[in-house]
Amino acid sequence: MKISETMIPTLREVPAEAVIASHQLMLRAGLLRKLGNGLFVYLPFGLRAFRKVENIIREEMDNIGALEFKQPVVVPGDIWKESGRWETMGAGMLKAVNRVDQELVVSPTAEEAFTATIRDELSSYKQLPIVAYQINTKYRDEIRPRYGVMRGREFTMKDAYSFHTTQESLDETYEKFAKAYRRIFKRLGLTVIPVRADSGAMGGSGSEEFMVESVIGDDTLILCPKCGYAANTEKAACAPDIACDKDGKPQVATTASIEKVSCPGVETIVQMEEFFKMPAQQFIKVLIYKAFNSELDLTNAPGCKEFKCVTDESGIPHYPESFFAVAIRGDLDVNEAKLAANLKASEVELACEDDVIKYSGAPHGFVGPVGLTKVPLIVDESVMTRNEDGTFVVHVHDAVTGGGIADVDNIHVEPGRDFTPFMTADVRTVVAGDKCPNCGAEFYSKKGNELGHIFKLGYKYTKTMNVTYLDENGKQQIPTMGCYGIGVDRALASIIEEHHDDNGIIWPMSVAPYQVAIVPVKYEGTMKVEAGKIYDALQKAGIETLLDDRSERPGVKFKDIDLLGIPVRIVVGEKNLPNVELKCRNSADMQLVPATEAAAKAAEIVKAELAKLNG
Amino acid sequence: MKISETMIPTLREVPAEAVIASHQLMLRAGLLRKLGNGLFVYLPFGLRAFRKVENIIREEMDNIGALEFKQPVVVPGDIWKESGRWETMGAGMLKAVNRVDQELVVSPTAEEAFTATIRDELSSYKQLPIVAYQINTKYRDEIRPRYGVMRGREFTMKDAYSFHTTQESLDETYEKFAKAYRRIFKRLGLTVIPVRADSGAMGGSGSEEFMVESVIGDDTLILCPKCGYAANTEKAACAPDIACDKDGKPQVATTASIEKVSCPGVETIVQMEEFFKMPAQQFIKVLIYKAFNSELDLTNAPGCKEFKCVTDESGIPHYPESFFAVAIRGDLDVNEAKLAANLKASEVELACEDDVIKYSGAPHGFVGPVGLTKVPLIVDESVMTRNEDGTFVVHVHDAVTGGGIADVDNIHVEPGRDFTPFMTADVRTVVAGDKCPNCGAEFYSKKGNELGHIFKLGYKYTKTMNVTYLDENGKQQIPTMGCYGIGVDRALASIIEEHHDDNGIIWPMSVAPYQVAIVPVKYEGTMKVEAGKIYDALQKAGIETLLDDRSERPGVKFKDIDLLGIPVRIVVGEKNLPNVELKCRNSADMQLVPATEAAAKAAEIVKAELAKLNG
Repeated sequence: MKISETMIPTLREVPAEAVIASHQLMLRAGLLRKLGNGLFVYLPFGLRAFRKVENIIREEMDNIGALEFKQPVVVPGDIWKESGRWETMGAGMLKAVNRVDQELVVSPTAEEAFTATIRDELSSYKQLPIVAYQINTKYRDEIRPRYGVMRGREFTMKDAYSFHTTQESLDETYEKFAKAYRRIFKRLGLTVIPVRADSGAMGGSGSEEFMVESVIGDDTLILCPKCGYAANTEKAACAPDIACDKDGKPQVATTASIEKVSCPGVETIVQMEEFFKMPAQQFIKVLIYKAFNSELDLTNAPGCKEFKCVTDESGIPHYPESFFAVAIRGDLDVNEAKLAANLKASEVELACEDDVIKYSGAPHGFVGPVGLTKVPLIVDESVMTRNEDGTFVVHVHDAVTGGGIADVDNIHVEPGRDFTPFMTADVRTVVAGDKCPNCGAEFYSKKGNELGHIFKLGYKYTKTMNVTYLDENGKQQIPTMGCYGIGVDRALASIIEEHHDDNGIIWPMSVAPYQVAIVPVKYEGTMKVEAGKIYDALQKAGIETLLDDRSERPGVKFKDIDLLGIPVRIVVGEKNLPNVELKCRNSADMQLVPATEAAAKAAEIVKAELAKLNG
Repeated sequence: MKISETMIPTLREVPAEAVIASHQLMLRAGLLRKLGNGLFVYLPFGLRAFRKVENIIREEMDNIGALEFKQPVVVPGDIWKESGRWETMGAGMLKAVNRVDQELVVSPTAEEAFTATIRDELSSYKQLPIVAYQINTKYRDEIRPRYGVMRGREFTMKDAYSFHTTQESLDETYEKFAKAYRRIFKRLGLTVIPVRADSGAMGGSGSEEFMVESVIGDDTLILCPKCGYAANTEKAACAPDIACDKDGKPQVATTASIEKVSCPGVETIVQMEEFFKMPAQQFIKVLIYKAFNSELDLTNAPGCKEFKCVTDESGIPHYPESFFAVAIRGDLDVNEAKLAANLKASEVELACEDDVIKYSGAPHGFVGPVGLTKVPLIVDESVMTRNEDGTFVVHVHDAVTGGGIADVDNIHVEPGRDFTPFMTADVRTVVAGDKCPNCGAEFYSKKGNELGHIFKLGYKYTKTMNVTYLDENGKQQIPTMGCYGIGVDRALASIIEEHHDDNGIIWPMSVAPYQVAIVPVKYEGTMKVEAGKIYDALQKAGIETLLDDRSERPGVKFKDIDLLGIPVRIVVGEKNLPNVELKCRNSADMQLVPATEAAAKAAEIVKAELAKLNG
């Protein structure tokens, strides 16, 4: 392609709206433009790279036998009501009502659509497993779309869904995806951090996220430098640590009874450390949380008669709203994602001050674990753990806690003696410096963005949406399900995040919009003729080539080609002829080669680079 | 691909919901399924054909130098407000409001998006022409979606937009599209009827529709068997004909004055023919129409002071509502599309009875052309035509018309003498039997569906959306624009409409999901081995092959392969070995060929067929 025949509007200035490298470079190198908030148009140069990312994903999906479908982007609200997500998906889902009052959804994901489609076709176990995918438009209504396509509203996702007769079949397909994803990211030139959901245990994992490091990452990753443990902070566990007293010695159980201490205004942990002259590790802080849609059985939990339990179409009894007290060692923070998972809740949030007082008797800062009767008490494993026989191991002794009334704290509190939990659970936020549960090494942490996610869904959708098949014995069964996503736009942006320098993009060969650029110093005379010959030779060899036929100054052309990031550059200058300059974007080395050999040499580099990525 | 490894759920029965062949066959051959009203999911077999249609369109767009973009599917309402179509597009546009109260549109088309994108990039005449396209999801809210993807709600469209400095440049690009479209439809195996907008005049046409014949067509085409004139009934013109009297002789002007005749209950033309013993050709019927957004200059038109003229953001003065009397020869019908075009209105409809009386003084059936003071009178050219010098040629003489009050008609009415029009115009509905304006031959008519449309838009969007560039002299100019669409789903359905028989689809080679099918009579023993060898050989030759490895009865397999419509079929049966049967779906002929030569022979047929379509 000659530059004059396409449209690559490069920008000298960094657009003010763009703060991360990929967003800046996608605008500056003419890959995309903004049409609205979180809504982008790909220009021809960007679309070429986008399609290559799509095609690599498609090839690897086809390679593992996944079948490509194409669902509508706009889908009936009915199927979302069947699954129950019409209500629970929240404001991120863009709904519309059409002229005949049908409720519609601009798909944020397609579990419902694929489950509905397979439901209608499935009759026998012989048809399973079915592995279906599409690469299609999605819309999620980000409140604050930012960072270009890294966090946009409309985006393209490869989403796959599998249906199985057995857990083993699901496991097998899941592992195929796990491998295919590694291959896809390798081919895209992306360094990903695969993060398993459950403590890094291999094989049995039900979920794996593929993350890329990013300063603006949505997620915090907890990483072990020694054994490779990697977890999202929403899931990360750590080795138990020993709570120490003010002398740095392990805490010892007290025989003293609880004493009340008046301490008006001493609300925060820092204030408490100062007031009590004790380390935060010896405090137990208690927070009141409100949980939504908890599926815990609270029949015998304190205070829970007041919470309303309902059983809707989903068939699963749950509490639309319930409250919990959560006790944790004073120096630690509660991780709400881990808490929600333990409460089997769709979401948790700190209770408002009125509810704190209503359920604990005390205002925030003075809530204690002792004598709670209106809410179930969840105790983090930093405070105590429950043995299989129902007895407890206590980790925090002789503790200071809120007194359960305003301006009063308790001292000499002994977990187990002075309070027992409704449930113990690991709900602490693991941070850098905590110890790896596998090998004991000290964690470090990174910010990351999720590029892909594979997940064993189980029966969630097939049950609520009534998908069945007949097994070998003619008995009706429900299939189990997996889902597997990759964000195409975000993968593209991440490639640029990982592959650029101050001068512009440095495309991996596999996704480069063009593989070779030819830059005649001036597009005239012999230079034009020689450039044309090399161009024709490359075109004939099937190499995607961009010829800079503009009458710009050479400096402008070089700057542009660097900005565009074409992997191989051939400069045709009068003074070097019959030789030309051959240079790779990812190296400072430049060589002079005879013009007659330039095309062959460039083609060789292209093929070698592709082989390296695809190998 | 082995059938067992994909998912092609064929149906024996014709689904009740499907009334046309393409819809029936797309369901029966497992190409697609319905997800909601007018919302379809393509299954793997259908998607293969769909992608081939897309790719043929893409190749031909690239061949004429059009640049591929990708706009978001969901776009900001703002750009639709800028163009003015937020209001005028009607209920077919699916609007949504997101969580932060931004108004959004699920794109029904993309003039606004492309105009906005190009506006931001355009500065100099040197950048023009720009020819941009995308192949992307669209949504139009059909009230009654039917006939599968032939008239769905969500669909995929190739939409292209071009921007130019001059009319000549637009004409040139338009002609490239006109040729590319012919090539696309040829490659798709589709017989299209190109319909030019303005009377079939070659070259100067501003619009061309590419229609396929269809019994369920949305459009009626008027066709000349002699000179090839083809027009949509919404645009079709015809040769003037001579109005005759009751003796079949040309009507003669009368010198008699108008007489009023009481004729209560004589309202329809049929009743009038009976009552007056005269042919309908000697009546002039007058209808009162309401017009929306007429851009006519009505400053000096009768009664028009009452109509409110507004100038909104579009900058074009127009009447949101206005009324017109339309006079036409009694045996003819007014074509509302032609009338709207002549009134420069977005839409027209018959006025309600109250408005008829208000503006004409008489109820429907007795409205006359004489003495109208409250509305402008539009007279069809069947009644009279205006010469360049302002004089008239009258075609209906001594006419009977409504009397302008209830239950009274006028006789001896002479157009020109008794009334003069505000405007004469061609607004009649041309029908089969009317005469071709080019050659005088008698028209016939067909129902058709529009597959594609190319259109010289002019300045409509660039003016309202303020697109400018600097010309050679540094002067700000507005570019002119063209737009060019093809419906991908509808093209696919139309291919099946044109290529099928009672047994199933007969794919043109260019879009066949698979090019060759191998059917072992039983998938076992030598048959399995030989089928496998042929399959491997075809795969190696790059031929898309489907191997029926199911353990179904041979009859079921043959029926399925016919239904699927794979162009070449190889049957491997024990009794024929070492020969196999080779048969083309589009022919009854079957030949026995040695199994060892079957792959080569099939590949030859595939290549020959492709060459024929692409040649």
